[in-house]
Amino acid sequence: MHLHTTMFLQSVSFQMTEEQHKKWLAAITNYTIIGTYAQTELGHGTYLRGLETTATYDTSTQEFVLHSPTLTSLKWWPGNLGKLVTHAIVAARLITRGKDYGIHLFMVQLRSMEDHSSLPGIELGDIGPKLGYSNVDNGFLRLEYVRIPRDQMCMKFSQVHPDGTYSAPPHSKLSYNSMVHIRSGLVKRVGIGLSKGATIATRYSAVRRQSELIPGRPEPLIMDYQSQQMKLFPQIATAYAFILTGFQLGQVFLSYIAEAKEGDFSALPELHSTSAGLKAFTTESTRGGLEVLRMSCGGHGFSSASAFPEIYGAFSPTCTFEGENTVMLLQTARFLMKSARQAMKGAKLTPFMSYLLLNQHERCRASKPDDFLDMDTLLLAYSHRARRMVTTSFRCIEADLKEGKNNGIAWNNNHLHLLAASTAHCHLFVVDSFNKAVQAIQCEDRTRRILRVLVQFYALDGILKNKGEFLESGYITVDQLDLVSKQFISLLAVIRPNAVALVDAFDFRDLKLGSVLGRYDGNVYENLYKWAKSAPLNRKDVADAYHLHLKPFLEENQRRVQSRL
Amino acid sequence: MHLHTTMFLQSVSFQMTEEQHKKWLAAITNYTIIGTYAQTELGHGTYLRGLETTATYDTSTQEFVLHSPTLTSLKWWPGNLGKLVTHAIVAARLITRGKDYGIHLFMVQLRSMEDHSSLPGIELGDIGPKLGYSNVDNGFLRLEYVRIPRDQMCMKFSQVHPDGTYSAPPHSKLSYNSMVHIRSGLVKRVGIGLSKGATIATRYSAVRRQSELIPGRPEPLIMDYQSQQMKLFPQIATAYAFILTGFQLGQVFLSYIAEAKEGDFSALPELHSTSAGLKAFTTESTRGGLEVLRMSCGGHGFSSASAFPEIYGAFSPTCTFEGENTVMLLQTARFLMKSARQAMKGAKLTPFMSYLLLNQHERCRASKPDDFLDMDTLLLAYSHRARRMVTTSFRCIEADLKEGKNNGIAWNNNHLHLLAASTAHCHLFVVDSFNKAVQAIQCEDRTRRILRVLVQFYALDGILKNKGEFLESGYITVDQLDLVSKQFISLLAVIRPNAVALVDAFDFRDLKLGSVLGRYDGNVYENLYKWAKSAPLNRKDVADAYHLHLKPFLEENQRRVQSRL
Ligand SMILES: Cc1cc2nc3c(=O)[nH]c(=O)nc-3n(C[C@H](O)[C@H](O)[C@H](O)COP(=O)(O)OP(=O)(O)OC[C@H]3O[C@@H](n4cnc5c(N)ncnc54)[C@H](O)[C@@H]3O)c2cc1C
Ligand SMILES: Cc1cc2nc3c(=O)[nH]c(=O)nc-3n(C[C@H](O)[C@H](O)[C@H](O)COP(=O)(O)OP(=O)(O)OC[C@H]3O[C@@H](n4cnc5c(N)ncnc54)[C@H](O)[C@@H]3O)c2cc1C
Ligand SMILES: [Ca+2]
Repeated sequence: MHLHTTMFLQSVSFQMTEEQHKKWLAAITNYTIIGTYAQTELGHGTYLRGLETTATYDTSTQEFVLHSPTLTSLKWWPGNLGKLVTHAIVAARLITRGKDYGIHLFMVQLRSMEDHSSLPGIELGDIGPKLGYSNVDNGFLRLEYVRIPRDQMCMKFSQVHPDGTYSAPPHSKLSYNSMVHIRSGLVKRVGIGLSKGATIATRYSAVRRQSELIPGRPEPLIMDYQSQQMKLFPQIATAYAFILTGFQLGQVFLSYIAEAKEGDFSALPELHSTSAGLKAFTTESTRGGLEVLRMSCGGHGFSSASAFPEIYGAFSPTCTFEGENTVMLLQTARFLMKSARQAMKGAKLTPFMSYLLLNQHERCRASKPDDFLDMDTLLLAYSHRARRMVTTSFRCIEADLKEGKNNGIAWNNNHLHLLAASTAHCHLFVVDSFNKAVQAIQCEDRTRRILRVLVQFYALDGILKNKGEFLESGYITVDQLDLVSKQFISLLAVIRPNAVALVDAFDFRDLKLGSVLGRYDGNVYENLYKWAKSAPLNRKDVADAYHLHLKPFLEENQRRVQSRL
Repeated sequence: MHLHTTMFLQSVSFQMTEEQHKKWLAAITNYTIIGTYAQTELGHGTYLRGLETTATYDTSTQEFVLHSPTLTSLKWWPGNLGKLVTHAIVAARLITRGKDYGIHLFMVQLRSMEDHSSLPGIELGDIGPKLGYSNVDNGFLRLEYVRIPRDQMCMKFSQVHPDGTYSAPPHSKLSYNSMVHIRSGLVKRVGIGLSKGATIATRYSAVRRQSELIPGRPEPLIMDYQSQQMKLFPQIATAYAFILTGFQLGQVFLSYIAEAKEGDFSALPELHSTSAGLKAFTTESTRGGLEVLRMSCGGHGFSSASAFPEIYGAFSPTCTFEGENTVMLLQTARFLMKSARQAMKGAKLTPFMSYLLLNQHERCRASKPDDFLDMDTLLLAYSHRARRMVTTSFRCIEADLKEGKNNGIAWNNNHLHLLAASTAHCHLFVVDSFNKAVQAIQCEDRTRRILRVLVQFYALDGILKNKGEFLESGYITVDQLDLVSKQFISLLAVIRPNAVALVDAFDFRDLKLGSVLGRYDGNVYENLYKWAKSAPLNRKDVADAYHLHLKPFLEENQRRVQSRL
């Protein structure tokens, strides 16, 4: 019922008037109705303006008539829509007095409160099996001239009056708030998802022994292989980074909301764009990280006993829903290109964007590995990289425009650069937030020391994984990259003795983790055996399929052979 | 029954004597018995020497006694082992006359041919649900002093005589053949897997419309976004590259087998090491590519109707089985370090390894984007990158040894560099093979022209995705990388009008593809709707779960609210 308490409740809270709250809020919080949020259609997702469902106002009866005019306009994907919910907030094009005012939200009852049957004009169904989310009934909805009273449009920001006249919202930006809120929340949520995976793989790596490290000696723990540390430790650091960045972002959002209440929306453009990009950056990094962690468990990582298949199913869709990742990064890029233009014109930039003003001829002075423990140096390296990626995009677009290309074409012709720019920008944001958060956190010195190592390590790892862009920025040389590698390798040894404690600190109970590999007591093999033995298929030695299929098959083959003799 | 016809049959064919063939081959090919290959144990996978299962020869009865001495020695993972098979080739430590001769293979009957019950001393079961392979019953096996006749040891290369004396194999390398064969085969197999995904996503991208490219114009096909092309086209090129490289590798293997029959094993070390690394390189690239392709389909990519969930489940394990990828790359690295040492000493290198002799001061002369269409230039860039990665690893290991580090420790301390070296080496191998294969292929000029573009494109894409290493090699400058980007972008436009034809050429029938998104006729939406409607859950409007759970829940909530009023 996740959507009931998130998108459904939020739409009602944020988009309905107080009057409307009286009618709906209690029913939602008491669960006397169950709802979902239905925006995506079979043929339309990302592009809100492309949605086809219509809500046409009928002045004579003061009702909206909701309708799916085409096959592609069927609502498709909303969670719990197929079989579970009784109501939905439906996104539809508002048409009144013959004019199309674009997408608005409407409360629509879908099923009878008597017997749960779908109401007249409404066709509902499950969209079928999918990757992960197997216990969520993502569904479809076809509306055929379904009538709802006028007051079931979400009227907080725009209204349709009884006579069909339309009032537009005062600030078009207001509707961004809930998107910013949800996307910022995702940053922390995927951080927690990644921390789950990191806990499982790290604990298992402290139990599993394999191969040989020093010839003749007993098999070492796999955690003692450098390559294994390269799989685990960056993910541990990343999980901390995302959880703390998500937390920081939450703070920024709250202070923006306070300002917005006073009518100051100046922070919105940057916040909106950063949260979009961070959503993409952190979900993709989590998706990839979870796969690295799963594979770091060898064969057993594939077993459901590891919990990885379920965790991947749960987190992989974050790359696509709440804003498809490529589209999100391109949204951030719009803001970056605006900022680059401002920088060119000498106009004022936001504090964070002032990295665009760095001198491109500045060079890193690091001359020994330890110099790359200095966070100022590391942040400067990230800043120069972001500067370079943003200005390259800007220049390439300008060049295309000068050649006479249309705006949209020039933009499209530089997705390659724009995506790199957004990614570099978000990466800098995470390193910076992570660093600040660890400085500000209340904890023991010993804890802060190891958290600081994680910040350094996260930054070093990011340089090594994107070294081309760091070199391109000109700030770092090839020789200095060798120092980065050396320092990275040194930190592996620092993290190794703390690795298990670092994941224990994520504080997952065994029950919550649901992973035999990730058990706190490390008693993996005995419990893998127990887990397998308890599978329903193992209740009988000879499976039913033997009698049905295998026995006749084997006997027939036997007969054939004998008849040939 | 995949394992029956692959590993089971192959072990019998390659590892048993002609005498033994008489006893077993007909039964296998006629399917009067069903078998699998049981090597991996609960506690041991990668490290063959770590396996614990024993096969102790009893001279008095001329039998082997197979036994699982510990919980961790249970066979675990073999396909179809739990419920289906009647026999297995079991890998166990051979012990005779009190001496442990290490791992050998044994034919063991597991279930009765009468009623399929597991034979005395044998415990069998399914290991439970997992990622993908849901219709393969991966199983476990515990052996308690199970006796088999002496002639059920695979005796082609080594023998135990009736009196328990042991004859060692003539060439320790012979057992490598089947590994090389299987790993080379995987290269082509994953190429085909990737081509499936590329077909689905490309066809869908030629149907799906979303967002806007030029403001005011109708929604474009998503294939017209540069970012979408950046997802699709590299995967199309990679699929061609792997299929053709796999084919080349197959040829190399055949000519080696011919040489080996004459007693010439000189090609084996390189072939063995290259096939290991290529197995890792191509499976990982396929796994990642399939996810890119799935996500390029937005929400619908998650639906089983896309076929992506099943394809991912089928191909993702290739990264782990038949040699875990990290271990495979490190194996290749051993050969590279040997070659580097030979290069240092001025000893002879194999033709392919002669890239180690390139002059590190050589610089690329490209000065315009077109210069990066020249395959000699591109191959030289890849060669210099591989040279640099291999020599860096070699130098770092030497430095650690000079510091007095133990061999194994020095090796382990440089996994970071060694993995990069192997990857660069394999990448070069693929670019080179792909290029050669396209030169050699029999086809129309028009076809060769577009295939040649794919080779160039594959090479350019690889440079952009690994630009740090190309810059580190010194061969390419930052300014030249700009030319690479420009050329890459130009080729996107060349591939765009050919994209659908390129995937059609993979020649998957709709039935084989099993994907609504990938339908040849492009009739996606209507068939997504039909597919969903046909789901069993949609047979009834009101699901049974309503009566069981939801109705009581809603009614109880309603009562609670009313009693409060
Ligand atoms: C598990 C799951 C749960 C969901 N739950 C809900 C729900 O509860 N309610 C609901 O309303 N929806 C839900 N959805 C739908 C989800 O929100 C959409 O799938 C998502 O918004 C992506 O839209 P799309 O599917 O149209 O992708 P598309 O936009 O069609 O994406 C396909 C490709 O086109 C590219 N593309 C699109 N536009 C551009 C552009 N402008 N520039 C460059 N490239 C572009 C994308 O990058 C992508 O590669 C759910 C989806 C999933 C997978
Ligand atoms: C779907 C599926 C089907 C399978 N089918 C079969 C089958 O039919 N028959 C059969 O016998 N087996 C089968 N297996 C088992 C499979 O072959 C093993 O899982 C595989 O060989 C990996 O071994 P492992 O699980 O012990 O991984 P591990 O070796 O334990 O790997 C765990 C981690 O340790 C690391 N590691 C291990 N050694 C080293 C080293 N020397 N240096 C650096 N790092 C190291 C790895 O890189 C990895 O990150 C199957 C597995 C799967 C997933
Ligand atoms: Ca559309």
